[in-house]
Amino acid sequence: MINYITSKANPKIKYLISLKDSKTRKENKQFVAEGYKILEMALENNRVKEIYTLEKIDGINDDIIQYIITEEILKKISSTKTPEGVVFICDIIENIPSKNNKIIYLDHVQDPGNAGTIIRTALSFGYDSVVFSNDSVDIYNEKLIQASKGSIFKIPVFKKDINDIKNNHKIIGSTLSNKSIFLEEVIVKEPLILVVGNESHGISKEIEQIADLLVKIPIENMESLNVSVASGILMYHFKN
Amino acid sequence: MINYITSKANPKIKYLISLKDSKTRKENKQFVAEGYKILEMALENNRVKEIYTLEKIDGINDDIIQYIITEEILKKISSTKTPEGVVFICDIIENIPSKNNKIIYLDHVQDPGNAGTIIRTALSFGYDSVVFSNDSVDIYNEKLIQASKGSIFKIPVFKKDINDIKNNHKIIGSTLSNKSIFLEEVIVKEPLILVVGNESHGISKEIEQIADLLVKIPIENMESLNVSVASGILMYHFKN
Repeated sequence: MINYITSKANPKIKYLISLKDSKTRKENKQFVAEGYKILEMALENNRVKEIYTLEKIDGINDDIIQYIITEEILKKISSTKTPEGVVFICDIIENIPSKNNKIIYLDHVQDPGNAGTIIRTALSFGYDSVVFSNDSVDIYNEKLIQASKGSIFKIPVFKKDINDIKNNHKIIGSTLSNKSIFLEEVIVKEPLILVVGNESHGISKEIEQIADLLVKIPIENMESLNVSVASGILMYHFKN
Repeated sequence: MINYITSKANPKIKYLISLKDSKTRKENKQFVAEGYKILEMALENNRVKEIYTLEKIDGINDDIIQYIITEEILKKISSTKTPEGVVFICDIIENIPSKNNKIIYLDHVQDPGNAGTIIRTALSFGYDSVVFSNDSVDIYNEKLIQASKGSIFKIPVFKKDINDIKNNHKIIGSTLSNKSIFLEEVIVKEPLILVVGNESHGISKEIEQIADLLVKIPIENMESLNVSVASGILMYHFKN
């Protein structure tokens, strides 16, 4: 179905903009994403409800409404400096992982770019899910969706306390403490939960205490690596 | 030396703001950075010329002028949403690496956050220098400096064509092409140049042709990893 919107004051546009706020997202169980590549992955996974685009997109299922908008409206609703031309609304669905042998857990990770990049890496290395601590960044933050490059539609991502997902998993905390073992020396069998921490403070005391193992990547000269880089190295190491 | 600036129209402030433009940086051979941690690393490496701060900072050498500014001026000159309270000007100096056995080469990398993160990782893994292709992002971009977390003051970073640094180095190009060998199977002795490519298009045809070896990180489900994550995994692998 095709509709035309020419006014920025249209209630649909107002609603879409309101979804840039995490509270509104939570209340309405919807979020906004943009770009053709990400749209493609969202479509493949049946997550798209409405599309706002400069030009009609062919091959879209009829029950997804396409709103044809103006350049001016696009600029208003896009979060990027050079919008590709398509913004869309998706439902928030809590994907239940079919198996859960390899989990990466984000302990108070704050930067949406880092979190989105970690989701992208987790899907690339065949992890089963990405779990955020309750005090981590909002999962449906627009910058996070962009950085995830659409991986968020393919791998289950949700917020949970680590105690509620522990079961019989080995918990591996990444921290540069003296108690940590160098990564190269560590072999761990699944099921496992790999924990990475906050950008400034690392993993929490609580995680240090419940972890079965603390590991560190051997670095020099700097206090730490960027958390998405560290996560990449860890997930690569614990891939098999 | 201490000076007070209370007007946004002060020529010093206007000059500082003009350094946000890459052309002005090039002409004046100066750039801007901010934050206490990054200042500390810049001071250790004798790179600071002038400091703009809300409060006098103790222990600063007398030949570095401290300008005490207002909150309003700070907001105007800072590039971050929540400025820490200190912005400073540094000279652009081309650091010559004392040895150059391990180089990471950025082939047309565009995102300043990615480039800065790669510099941080390179210093952390004991690389000797980071070299940008001439068409990569400007080295002294403010977002790049922030993402580098000050590592840019400790490791030589410069722009050069790869042919001008090749010498007897082995060139290892990272690309997901069929011709690439899986990373796990590769052992390479120094001197080496590790090449990572553009965010959308990967490494250039030219690099593919001059490379001694093409390698890939084994991934599934996604087309590629984020370039700073891929660089981290590669530098970790080729650390020793």
